[in-house]
Amino acid sequence: MTSTVISAETDIYARRESAARSYCRSFPASFTQAQGARLTDDQGNTYIDFLAGCASLNYGHNDPDLKAALIEHISADGLAHGLDYHNTPKADFLKTFERLILKPRGLDHRVQFTGPTGANAVEAALKLARKVTGRRTVIAFTNGFHGVTMGALAATGNSHHRGGAGGGSLTDVVRMPYDGAFGPEVDTAAQIEAMLDNPSSGIDAPAAFLLEAVQGEGGLNAANPEWLRKIERIARKHGALLIVDDIQAGIGRTGGFFSFEEAGITPDLIPMAKSLSGFGLPMACLLVRPQHDIWAPAEHNGTFRGNVHAFVTARAALVKFWSDKGFQNEVADKAALLTERLQRIAAIIPGASLKGRGMMQGIDVGSGELASEICARCYEDGLIIETSGAHDEVVKVLAPLTIETDLLAHGLDILQAAAGESVCVRALAAE
Amino acid sequence: MTSTVISAETDIYARRESAARSYCRSFPASFTQAQGARLTDDQGNTYIDFLAGCASLNYGHNDPDLKAALIEHISADGLAHGLDYHNTPKADFLKTFERLILKPRGLDHRVQFTGPTGANAVEAALKLARKVTGRRTVIAFTNGFHGVTMGALAATGNSHHRGGAGGGSLTDVVRMPYDGAFGPEVDTAAQIEAMLDNPSSGIDAPAAFLLEAVQGEGGLNAANPEWLRKIERIARKHGALLIVDDIQAGIGRTGGFFSFEEAGITPDLIPMAKSLSGFGLPMACLLVRPQHDIWAPAEHNGTFRGNVHAFVTARAALVKFWSDKGFQNEVADKAALLTERLQRIAAIIPGASLKGRGMMQGIDVGSGELASEICARCYEDGLIIETSGAHDEVVKVLAPLTIETDLLAHGLDILQAAAGESVCVRALAAE
Amino acid sequence: MTSTVISAETDIYARRESAARSYCRSFPASFTQAQGARLTDDQGNTYIDFLAGCASLNYGHNDPDLKAALIEHISADGLAHGLDYHNTPKADFLKTFERLILKPRGLDHRVQFTGPTGANAVEAALKLARKVTGRRTVIAFTNGFHGVTMGALAATGNSHHRGGAGGGSLTDVVRMPYDGAFGPEVDTAAQIEAMLDNPSSGIDAPAAFLLEAVQGEGGLNAANPEWLRKIERIARKHGALLIVDDIQAGIGRTGGFFSFEEAGITPDLIPMAKSLSGFGLPMACLLVRPQHDIWAPAEHNGTFRGNVHAFVTARAALVKFWSDKGFQNEVADKAALLTERLQRIAAIIPGASLKGRGMMQGIDVGSGELASEICARCYEDGLIIETSGAHDEVVKVLAPLTIETDLLAHGLDILQAAAGESVCVRALAAE
Amino acid sequence: MTSTVISAETDIYARRESAARSYCRSFPASFTQAQGARLTDDQGNTYIDFLAGCASLNYGHNDPDLKAALIEHISADGLAHGLDYHNTPKADFLKTFERLILKPRGLDHRVQFTGPTGANAVEAALKLARKVTGRRTVIAFTNGFHGVTMGALAATGNSHHRGGAGGGSLTDVVRMPYDGAFGPEVDTAAQIEAMLDNPSSGIDAPAAFLLEAVQGEGGLNAANPEWLRKIERIARKHGALLIVDDIQAGIGRTGGFFSFEEAGITPDLIPMAKSLSGFGLPMACLLVRPQHDIWAPAEHNGTFRGNVHAFVTARAALVKFWSDKGFQNEVADKAALLTERLQRIAAIIPGASLKGRGMMQGIDVGSGELASEICARCYEDGLIIETSGAHDEVVKVLAPLTIETDLLAHGLDILQAAAGESVCVRALAAE
Repeated sequence: MTSTVISAETDIYARRESAARSYCRSFPASFTQAQGARLTDDQGNTYIDFLAGCASLNYGHNDPDLKAALIEHISADGLAHGLDYHNTPKADFLKTFERLILKPRGLDHRVQFTGPTGANAVEAALKLARKVTGRRTVIAFTNGFHGVTMGALAATGNSHHRGGAGGGSLTDVVRMPYDGAFGPEVDTAAQIEAMLDNPSSGIDAPAAFLLEAVQGEGGLNAANPEWLRKIERIARKHGALLIVDDIQAGIGRTGGFFSFEEAGITPDLIPMAKSLSGFGLPMACLLVRPQHDIWAPAEHNGTFRGNVHAFVTARAALVKFWSDKGFQNEVADKAALLTERLQRIAAIIPGASLKGRGMMQGIDVGSGELASEICARCYEDGLIIETSGAHDEVVKVLAPLTIETDLLAHGLDILQAAAGESVCVRALAAE
Repeated sequence: MTSTVISAETDIYARRESAARSYCRSFPASFTQAQGARLTDDQGNTYIDFLAGCASLNYGHNDPDLKAALIEHISADGLAHGLDYHNTPKADFLKTFERLILKPRGLDHRVQFTGPTGANAVEAALKLARKVTGRRTVIAFTNGFHGVTMGALAATGNSHHRGGAGGGSLTDVVRMPYDGAFGPEVDTAAQIEAMLDNPSSGIDAPAAFLLEAVQGEGGLNAANPEWLRKIERIARKHGALLIVDDIQAGIGRTGGFFSFEEAGITPDLIPMAKSLSGFGLPMACLLVRPQHDIWAPAEHNGTFRGNVHAFVTARAALVKFWSDKGFQNEVADKAALLTERLQRIAAIIPGASLKGRGMMQGIDVGSGELASEICARCYEDGLIIETSGAHDEVVKVLAPLTIETDLLAHGLDILQAAAGESVCVRALAAE
Repeated sequence: MTSTVISAETDIYARRESAARSYCRSFPASFTQAQGARLTDDQGNTYIDFLAGCASLNYGHNDPDLKAALIEHISADGLAHGLDYHNTPKADFLKTFERLILKPRGLDHRVQFTGPTGANAVEAALKLARKVTGRRTVIAFTNGFHGVTMGALAATGNSHHRGGAGGGSLTDVVRMPYDGAFGPEVDTAAQIEAMLDNPSSGIDAPAAFLLEAVQGEGGLNAANPEWLRKIERIARKHGALLIVDDIQAGIGRTGGFFSFEEAGITPDLIPMAKSLSGFGLPMACLLVRPQHDIWAPAEHNGTFRGNVHAFVTARAALVKFWSDKGFQNEVADKAALLTERLQRIAAIIPGASLKGRGMMQGIDVGSGELASEICARCYEDGLIIETSGAHDEVVKVLAPLTIETDLLAHGLDILQAAAGESVCVRALAAE
Repeated sequence: MTSTVISAETDIYARRESAARSYCRSFPASFTQAQGARLTDDQGNTYIDFLAGCASLNYGHNDPDLKAALIEHISADGLAHGLDYHNTPKADFLKTFERLILKPRGLDHRVQFTGPTGANAVEAALKLARKVTGRRTVIAFTNGFHGVTMGALAATGNSHHRGGAGGGSLTDVVRMPYDGAFGPEVDTAAQIEAMLDNPSSGIDAPAAFLLEAVQGEGGLNAANPEWLRKIERIARKHGALLIVDDIQAGIGRTGGFFSFEEAGITPDLIPMAKSLSGFGLPMACLLVRPQHDIWAPAEHNGTFRGNVHAFVTARAALVKFWSDKGFQNEVADKAALLTERLQRIAAIIPGASLKGRGMMQGIDVGSGELASEICARCYEDGLIIETSGAHDEVVKVLAPLTIETDLLAHGLDILQAAAGESVCVRALAAE
């Protein structure tokens, strides 16, 4: 298989698509079809997908039941664009979400349909937390990623993305060390508490804490449940809202529907997006505890809040995967397999270590160069896989949760071979 | 027809949807189907749509050719979510956009697929203009609307939306008076030029001017072509980029594909969204002159940049409506009808005047109260129509461009009756 | 007289004084003594002082009565530095200020002794206005100058000084056109009111308007009393405080003790500095209407708030010059002389016009180059005089108010000769 | 002695001085004279001064030699106000400062005379660091105090003072933990380095580090020399300037002329003020390494940069106290006495500990309430002494460095008695 055969299509990209494009540089194939965990390009080559739309395709590509529901809706002239009108698919989604997700978890949150991107849900959360508390400062964390619009960008740690603001103001965010930022022995929550307890620390009373339970772009850093509970307690003590950005880590990716279930905390605001529609369609929402839902009508608005196609597939996904524990159990089994295999692979890479949780795991291989090399080899062998982390030093597995076990194993075989080869080549070169 | 019959569905909204919802308060029906310029609710009532998803449905609901293309794509397991991978529908869209839109208009712009909302395209423009110029200040205009994310919100004039930031910083934007802001006799462009020419004016050298050629939310204020050319000249003279936000006014809404064609200017950056997909699906892009396309890969990114369904319908729409002048001529005829009828309606409302251009026209009825009353009567009679303007004082007609002439006329009959009735009732009440 | 003989002292400046120094570049003499309106350098040359410490020496250098009071105080071991302790000279100053200045003008303001610089008094005003109103935005004006600390710098128009912030944030200030900014026929107050009345203008409700009644650094622009009254009315209508920065234009410079007396307005906050001590000693205060004096103790503090030497001379100056109308009448006579002579000088400069009011007048000679040339010639002939304005195009007369009439006339003779010579040389060069 | 006899003067303060006044609330006497370490009030009571104008009077009140020089200067009609003109006293000060202070310490810095307050020198430093580096972020520390103008206020930690901004923007400062902020065992410098080394930490590349070697207002926290050296190294490594604010801790207060001499570091920028004039007169400067002195003329300016009276006394002080090691040795002896006595006093207060260094020491008594009580008792017994720290929990001794040893001992006797009494009363009350 030769993915280096650049299709004739490519010219148009060079000529007319912005230099901001990126994944297509690592994976230059031109894709035409996709099913489950497999992608096909215009040369007929197939690829195993260990990226899954950056966790936007937790149920894989074109799940047949979701696809059927969507085609039926379109065929019947169901609405595509519904502003924030009432409409049957939206009502059905809300009722199903309430019944299968919120109620069983004791969550009384309301759903705000924001513009259909994760960044927009984070923007809504940042604005609402400030509105509720009358405060301006939001505490965000090292290595956090929350989007690249100017409000959300302020909360994003990555210097590459921050630089995209071209010097425009990224304000009202105070940065604190995430769990483990100074090594496992330093309790950063205690340090944060000391800062906030000190009236001369220079940290103004915060409107909110904004965090991911597992940092996806930041390097698959998984916060300890105990640390999350401490942060929740500190937030409550200081009158700040707790925002858990569950855009990448939520919707089954780390085990439960929400990434924070394990820690037993109750965030005030929860931005959701990515796999929310279940089909890869743009959809986002902010879950808001009722007492904080003080928006005036349309105070946060946007044209595409009512992506009705997405409501249809989102509901179908909830019914198919979250009506009982079956799916969760399956995911847990695959996550166990993943852990085991990644440990074996890490063992052959000097200094490597496992990162992450559930189906959001990877290997810190120590350098971005080595990680990129491994991913490039994988692509040559038909596996799409990416890096993350401050130095792109983590090879990250984000397979669809629905991937067949043997396909998952096959993908991991490719990864293991690529890792082994990369390490050997380096060892030889070093001699 | 009784739209006041609240369906049983409504409970779920009260219980679980955020207070931020708004259109459903004016139009409480629960919609189930839509075709062309007609919506149907769950009670079987039909409505004429003079809102068209706030100009996101310029080609109407569920256009049969676009719908067929979309169903074909989905049925064949075409990608739904494509990150920023190369894929056939994207290449086809780009090639068609180049051939039918950019080339004939002499535009050398590249296309940056941003997150699929207008606000995201504006955010990208604001960031890029700062990056290109190394400056921070962006000049935006009174009554401009550019979205509600924190960067874009800074550029939005409306105090209601600005208040949604809860006191968070909205920075680096300087506000200038739009054309006509101080009456028709004041040349605000000359005042802006005087401010910028004065090194002690306190206005820092701007990175960009950001404006709409016709302000949609701001009250259908249409800038004079001469004023637009002056602003373009001032921007060039001061080394600033010209950003024309064509999200609402573009894609045929005011006559040409772009709203600024008439003025003969060439913006450096053009945010597009709303009707871009042609089907109401979330899609946005930023057109960027090649010399300004200095993004590093992924410097501005986002999960849903590759909404492949939208590429499919967007291309189908270009082919169907922009292959020749037929559609534009049709739109011009309807716009002329609209002008004529609105003039007649305005004539019966004391002090009323026409606003806007093309199929983006309305009547300034002098007060938000009267405008709301007229719209509410329209809804009772099966017409969906909304207000705009700083005081919601403009009744705004945003019908699909594809609306049948007799349906347009029928809708305007309803509007005329509602206006007449509202004026009479008021006159009687005042006696 | 040869001021170009550089004294041996100069080396030390090149070696050890920062490049930020500036006046010494135009006037390179090394001064040793000063009396009234005369300065003497270390070569024995004398100069007429038409700069008066930028209006910090309204009573001239080393006024004998003030000097005697100061020496008496120091000799008796009176306090030099008094923090904000009660002390007799401070009490005496406050009582005299109340009796001779505040009460006769019907002002109930309190005196806040801020750090002893004008910028600090402006900083205190900006902070207090925000504290009182709970709002952030302050409206400042084109060509305004209010100091170069970061808060005050945000309110300063001059791009040279703004650039000194090195890209740091200058925030929360909205810039509006000063009276006459767009020519005499445009009522900028009406435009400002239109902006503030429009809820979609993008201008947030302001905490305060900050302005000078005559703009000193900005080019001796004197606002029309009617315009000042309009701004006061607009401020009240929109719940904003009115801050009149009387640092340069106050203390007799424009006729009355305050520059705004003529307009009959009552500012809420009045920053004072420069000639406040009467002797050129650092001293500043903010006058605050009692209802706005909501500071907590030390909330705005500073080490040198209690410059007791300055209290001593400030009180002596009030007693000497403001006990009756004699001084004001004298100043009015000199101002009339000044106007008459400047008109004659302006008449010989093509396109020149008079600027300013009272003893704060000058000539707009059309270009900074010509203005500098004239000032340089004056210096050669023993007259110290400077330029102001956005382009340094105004030759500005800021003589001590106490200057003897014949010395004033003598200085104006020098100015007239210099202007004539400069104009002739240019005319010849142009032939 | 009854300081509670409120003099008739007091009314005027209530009537006409702003509520921002503060020290006069703790020490309500009205002072008339001062000599060395003694103050006298209008009732003839005398007080020992352990506050020394918050370290602005390191050489005591009205030092006879400085006083004589000043009276001589004034008597001879020497300039009082000299803008930034060359003048003999300024040249003499610069030459003496170069000879006695800069050269012996190997410092090549230039002197920028800023507005005559510490805050202004800090503002100049913040602006210059941003100008030099082209960066915006300044790192400041917990418990730092750098003034209350809006730029400097951003760098101040204290929430009371920060609140004075009334919600205005305090931007572009990132807060880091000072040495010891998380206890003696945590190396905060290492944590800061980890944050800056991480490109995803969210901390933008800093323009500067701004710190005090001993935090005066923050609670007499003395940084370890090793920590200071680490911060210097980190600053250099990351291309940031090192600013040591030596306003309170400098000029002999902690032993050497500069507080950082002991650590052997070379700050790029050094704001100086308080005791710089030696006589309590307003004077400030910023020391700038020559390569960073990139100011354009007047880019940072201000009316009172040339307080010539202060140049006269400042030079006299340098000559008198810094011509040889005698003064420093004396100060060292007194500091040793101070340490010894404070240890004895701390021993009688449960949980108390010593803070600070040199003649800038105090006792952390555990609570602001107890500290205030002790200071109030001292005042009753004729000793002026204040608290500092985030909770005002530190009783701080800032006696003139020139205080006679027996007067210092006498003051400490009063402090000891007051501490003992306060502790006893509390112990009895607790029974």
